[in-house]
Amino acid sequence: MKTKVSGYFRKEEIKPPLQEHVINEMKHVVMERDPGSSLDKQLKMISMTTEDLAVLRSVQPFVANHIEEVVTGFYSTIAHVPQLSEIIERNSSVERLRTTLERHIREMFNGKINRAFVEQRKLIAHIHFRIGLEPKWYISAFQDLQLSLLSILDEHLEEKKDFYRATAAITKMLNLEQQLVLEAFSVEEEKARIKIEEQKLR
Amino acid sequence: MKTKVSGYFRKEEIKPPLQEHVINEMKHVVMERDPGSSLDKQLKMISMTTEDLAVLRSVQPFVANHIEEVVTGFYSTIAHVPQLSEIIERNSSVERLRTTLERHIREMFNGKINRAFVEQRKLIAHIHFRIGLEPKWYISAFQDLQLSLLSILDEHLEEKKDFYRATAAITKMLNLEQQLVLEAFSVEEEKARIKIEEQKLR
Repeated sequence: MKTKVSGYFRKEEIKPPLQEHVINEMKHVVMERDPGSSLDKQLKMISMTTEDLAVLRSVQPFVANHIEEVVTGFYSTIAHVPQLSEIIERNSSVERLRTTLERHIREMFNGKINRAFVEQRKLIAHIHFRIGLEPKWYISAFQDLQLSLLSILDEHLEEKKDFYRATAAITKMLNLEQQLVLEAFSVEEEKARIKIEEQKLR
Repeated sequence: MKTKVSGYFRKEEIKPPLQEHVINEMKHVVMERDPGSSLDKQLKMISMTTEDLAVLRSVQPFVANHIEEVVTGFYSTIAHVPQLSEIIERNSSVERLRTTLERHIREMFNGKINRAFVEQRKLIAHIHFRIGLEPKWYISAFQDLQLSLLSILDEHLEEKKDFYRATAAITKMLNLEQQLVLEAFSVEEEKARIKIEEQKLR
């Protein structure tokens, strides 16, 4: 079930060491949030730092190199759950979803958390809610993504300390994504509840 | 914000190598689910195997050694979000929650996924729903746990391949936990919706 990204790919470790890339990428990262806002607290809860964003930017090149396999693995995993395949077929095309997912993954490694990033994540979550995707499936699909990304890191980062650092950054980013999704799902559920109530009052 | 578990702890790497422990622990793991059931599909989606459970059992001893720090770190992270501290204070005591969380973490490394495991997870989720904890906070709290556990692995597993293997197993287990929580939350939300509808019909 797991995407294999190792083996037939040329080893192309990050040289110079990860730390040098991170220092360089620090100039290009953005973490915008209003102090005291919910997003601010959420980022603190998961210990997300600008350094994590720089780590993600540093590993972006080889994630980009493997992006097609990651996406293919993702859909082959989903195909094992018929109700999920049906949802996709009923509402979109695998080709269109591939494009969206590719963009989505690339943005995770862009080093930018700002309003546009958050809104884009929520928009995708709203769409998924409306097509009837249950949160548990959404979250389990994240795990496939996570395992593929860990496999890419394993392939490209020789040193355990670099692998650990990049793994921590990826788990934080995926956790943030999950939070945004769940928040959007809650909003939709609330809307649905209000709608039902209004209909009853008529 | 992050629990520091390194530094003042004696290095006690797993000797013999992780793989030998895993082989030994394979005799003690249990993964019960009805073929074709939702749980069966969920486990497949995240590529959870009995080998992962054996890996978790293999690292259990040093997670157990650090459990107090993990739990302390967890509550100090939560304390940064006043509405979360208030929920705890209003509904329970930190002491009681500490005991529950300790047990909860230990069970993650027990190498058993069965009906009792699933029901226990759902029960805790139901309690959290009823005390008004939003899913996004629940999920972000998991990340604190995840980072603490990664830090323990980093401290005790010298080899990158062992660290990678144990990390993958932990992310799978935490993902399964999240799925069970979200499922329980959905059930509660559905119940709440039905209750509202019934009241309107009276």
